[in-house]
Amino acid sequence: MLERLHQQINFIIEIDKLKLILRQNCLIHTPRAENDAEHSWHLAMMAMLLTEYADDAPVDLLKVIKMTLIHDVIEIYAGDTFCYDDVALASKQAREETAAAQLFSLLPPDQAAELHQLWDEFEAAGSPEARFANCLDRLQPLLLNYHTKGHTWQYGDVTSEKVHKRMAILAEYAPQLWDYAQTIIQDSIDKGFLKA
Amino acid sequence: MLERLHQQINFIIEIDKLKLILRQNCLIHTPRAENDAEHSWHLAMMAMLLTEYADDAPVDLLKVIKMTLIHDVIEIYAGDTFCYDDVALASKQAREETAAAQLFSLLPPDQAAELHQLWDEFEAAGSPEARFANCLDRLQPLLLNYHTKGHTWQYGDVTSEKVHKRMAILAEYAPQLWDYAQTIIQDSIDKGFLKA
Repeated sequence: MLERLHQQINFIIEIDKLKLILRQNCLIHTPRAENDAEHSWHLAMMAMLLTEYADDAPVDLLKVIKMTLIHDVIEIYAGDTFCYDDVALASKQAREETAAAQLFSLLPPDQAAELHQLWDEFEAAGSPEARFANCLDRLQPLLLNYHTKGHTWQYGDVTSEKVHKRMAILAEYAPQLWDYAQTIIQDSIDKGFLKA
Repeated sequence: MLERLHQQINFIIEIDKLKLILRQNCLIHTPRAENDAEHSWHLAMMAMLLTEYADDAPVDLLKVIKMTLIHDVIEIYAGDTFCYDDVALASKQAREETAAAQLFSLLPPDQAAELHQLWDEFEAAGSPEARFANCLDRLQPLLLNYHTKGHTWQYGDVTSEKVHKRMAILAEYAPQLWDYAQTIIQDSIDKGFLKA
């Protein structure tokens, strides 16, 4: 077998583990935690359907989709970090950079470089595509939480202020989605899913 | 809320159900069934990494990825059909066409038409992109079965002849992946994972 194909297949086998990385939020139609592979697929579908709301420069849809597909793969080694856990957040960047170097190096050098670059750009929100992909990565768990009576918001000390702050990127880069997010947040407060 | 965004969000909520549609094959690193959302994400990743092996006309990667993302969504209403179950296969097309009409109609008309067209094209293997996406849809479960000691091949009457036949599309449209698939199939026979 070609060495190149061998490396690609090894990576494809390794990332099967993303299906085992559980997130904090719950699926809408059944009470179990979502995993990162499901979440990444859902984001890619949202990218396909919602690009018209990206209000930055024109975005390259293929690049947005690639980012949504790979943005969490490093969690195979670094684990999922709860976005409202300040202690875990402090070590997140260093853990994830080590994981990225380790995981992407399984690939042939050109593809390792491409995926690492996409991941860096997503993390830094360093392009219109990265900013829109980040908007989707905020909106998707909001939708899931809203439709599960605020499942994740019941843990710890999550308030509407924290949720608003986390969604702020939408205000700047996808204002119509931000308007919609605000409606959901207000309705969640009104219904008692989220502390005001 | 805009009627258009309302329809898009409704669809995004509805397809959360794809995470509940279980497939026949098992994950590599833990003994549970894979679901369609995980499978679709894995195919999209494979499309990103393996396009260079598409040996047809040049393929449009964005189109291939879109197909991999949506190719199974109709199973939310039609269910998963085991590819070696001849009885279920007989009713598959009619069930899936009804499901496609029902599911895609949740979207705004232009997006409903686009997704339905992509799905039809994938099902008919009606373009270079559709043929390559079908190749990946054959190769991915082969990889999972190989790495789980032939998990799915133990059910019913699956033989290497049937597996070879199902993989035949690779011979025509992705010959290097076909060579690799043949190596895996032979090794599976040698190791007793698959009946010769």
